[in-house]
Amino acid sequence: MSVSSEGRIANLPTLADVRTAAARLAGRARVTPILRSEVLDAAAGARLHFKCEHLQHSGAFKFRGACNAVWSLDEAHAARGVVTHSSGNHGQALALAAASRGLPAHVVVPEGAVRAKVEAIEAAGARIYRCAPTQAAREAEAARVVDATGATLVHPYTDSRVIAGQGTVALELLQAVPSLDTLLVPVGGGGLAAGCALVGRGIAPNLALLAAEPAGADDAARSLRAGRRIADVVPETVCDGLRATVGAPNFDILKACGVAVLTVTDAQVLAAMRLLWRELRQVVEPSSATVLAAIQAHPEVFAGREVGVVLTGGNVDLDALPFG
Amino acid sequence: MSVSSEGRIANLPTLADVRTAAARLAGRARVTPILRSEVLDAAAGARLHFKCEHLQHSGAFKFRGACNAVWSLDEAHAARGVVTHSSGNHGQALALAAASRGLPAHVVVPEGAVRAKVEAIEAAGARIYRCAPTQAAREAEAARVVDATGATLVHPYTDSRVIAGQGTVALELLQAVPSLDTLLVPVGGGGLAAGCALVGRGIAPNLALLAAEPAGADDAARSLRAGRRIADVVPETVCDGLRATVGAPNFDILKACGVAVLTVTDAQVLAAMRLLWRELRQVVEPSSATVLAAIQAHPEVFAGREVGVVLTGGNVDLDALPFG
Repeated sequence: MSVSSEGRIANLPTLADVRTAAARLAGRARVTPILRSEVLDAAAGARLHFKCEHLQHSGAFKFRGACNAVWSLDEAHAARGVVTHSSGNHGQALALAAASRGLPAHVVVPEGAVRAKVEAIEAAGARIYRCAPTQAAREAEAARVVDATGATLVHPYTDSRVIAGQGTVALELLQAVPSLDTLLVPVGGGGLAAGCALVGRGIAPNLALLAAEPAGADDAARSLRAGRRIADVVPETVCDGLRATVGAPNFDILKACGVAVLTVTDAQVLAAMRLLWRELRQVVEPSSATVLAAIQAHPEVFAGREVGVVLTGGNVDLDALPFG
Repeated sequence: MSVSSEGRIANLPTLADVRTAAARLAGRARVTPILRSEVLDAAAGARLHFKCEHLQHSGAFKFRGACNAVWSLDEAHAARGVVTHSSGNHGQALALAAASRGLPAHVVVPEGAVRAKVEAIEAAGARIYRCAPTQAAREAEAARVVDATGATLVHPYTDSRVIAGQGTVALELLQAVPSLDTLLVPVGGGGLAAGCALVGRGIAPNLALLAAEPAGADDAARSLRAGRRIADVVPETVCDGLRATVGAPNFDILKACGVAVLTVTDAQVLAAMRLLWRELRQVVEPSSATVLAAIQAHPEVFAGREVGVVLTGGNVDLDALPFG
């Protein structure tokens, strides 16, 4: 696999890569619980299986991809550590994954990132580098750190190892609930959505593959409609984990696998976040709540179906919840 | 089994009753997940397995006992419904269990009960009766409702069917983690503690049986020290689910099974509640947090042990958390 300086990948990952990742993650990542709610099922007219990745190490599914990347490095590369740019969960996940192998981690953090998330990245032992809050500044600073340290860049969502790691969520869900006919995940940069799509198409070709996206950051929806990647959407959404533009390999996979995107408003997301608290007793971050928001906003898509729903992260400040 | 008007039971329940309850609850109660945390393990120097009964139907383990009671009634008794007195979780659990069999439920609620809990009892379809906030007033009003309706009294914790139902938590925990050497639950009226003690002594005689109790409602600790039930403690604690006085059959079982009680202060409880949020991402009610508070307050008891820890309930108002 060859990774260019922009984190673009020459070869797309495959189902075999996801299976290899699953073996690598055994005993390192958590097999997260699946929760159900009769009330939410009745409201949706569907059977919903909520995969609790907010209870994953680092509080998000991101640990899977980061851990797969860290533990797939050969000794020589590993010794020089890993670097990424992230405003949140991927940075924390990579820091924790690097620590699990005793490697140095360098995380470029844009100004304006959620303080609790930055503190968690530091607490996990990573070195923090600040930069301006633009994609260009993030990539330039990460490239500088790569040059200075010789560390390996682990892009948050275009890296093949990351995509393969995230796909293990779908493997676990399908193993636990083989009767699923629908899989629903949030889409931001598309690491999780692409990894899960590879699994769905690979082992359950009749599985409907759906992704939930904030209407204020709907580049994946627009891109799939247009048939080409649209990268100039300026995100405006409460879902801080989904502001990234869908990556090029991610878009290619979503398109090839026939993933359909459902958009939701921020108001729908906050209502869903509160409903997840009331009915599942789980506090998730806004990005996570997009999935239930999509089920509520597009009931005709889900009626009568058996749906695997991924709750992606729970890194919120309990003292400053965005729903009142 | 004969139940007097005070809810006293002539014959104590047995392990066989717990097994019967487990069969009755299959498909009705949830098999709740067990969560783990490396951070909490490291802090305790122990392996902690948190049984998430706050994710049980009705948000508390109470559903197990209530469901066992409701579904063990013969048709003639069932038709006349069930009645109890409760300021919270048992009332909600009984209302929900009765609804699951299509039976009327009557719940006597003392003035001053948490509003959210009372609303949940009503939402589950029960008829509410108000009374003064004393044990005598609760029992008198419940007796009046029994006379008026012919409904069966299901006492919150002295009822044999309730004790047997609560014991199924320990059965599930030991089935999932057979290597447990310690079991820790909160104690209030003692339904859960007694049911779990029956299971522990019955199938894992070397299991250390521990109960956590608020220092401001330490009647169980005092009673076991004195060797006789002390019922005149005036409770003063943030743990609204643990203010009841340990029941007579409950005390007999705790004493016979060698249960040891560890007391904790309200400040320790609130700190543990916050820690459970930070490390397990679970919001539990104060009564639930007594168990982690006990582990932190009495580290020498737990060092090196493999501990089953029951998180009993999660019915808190997210907008009014008692930790800041």
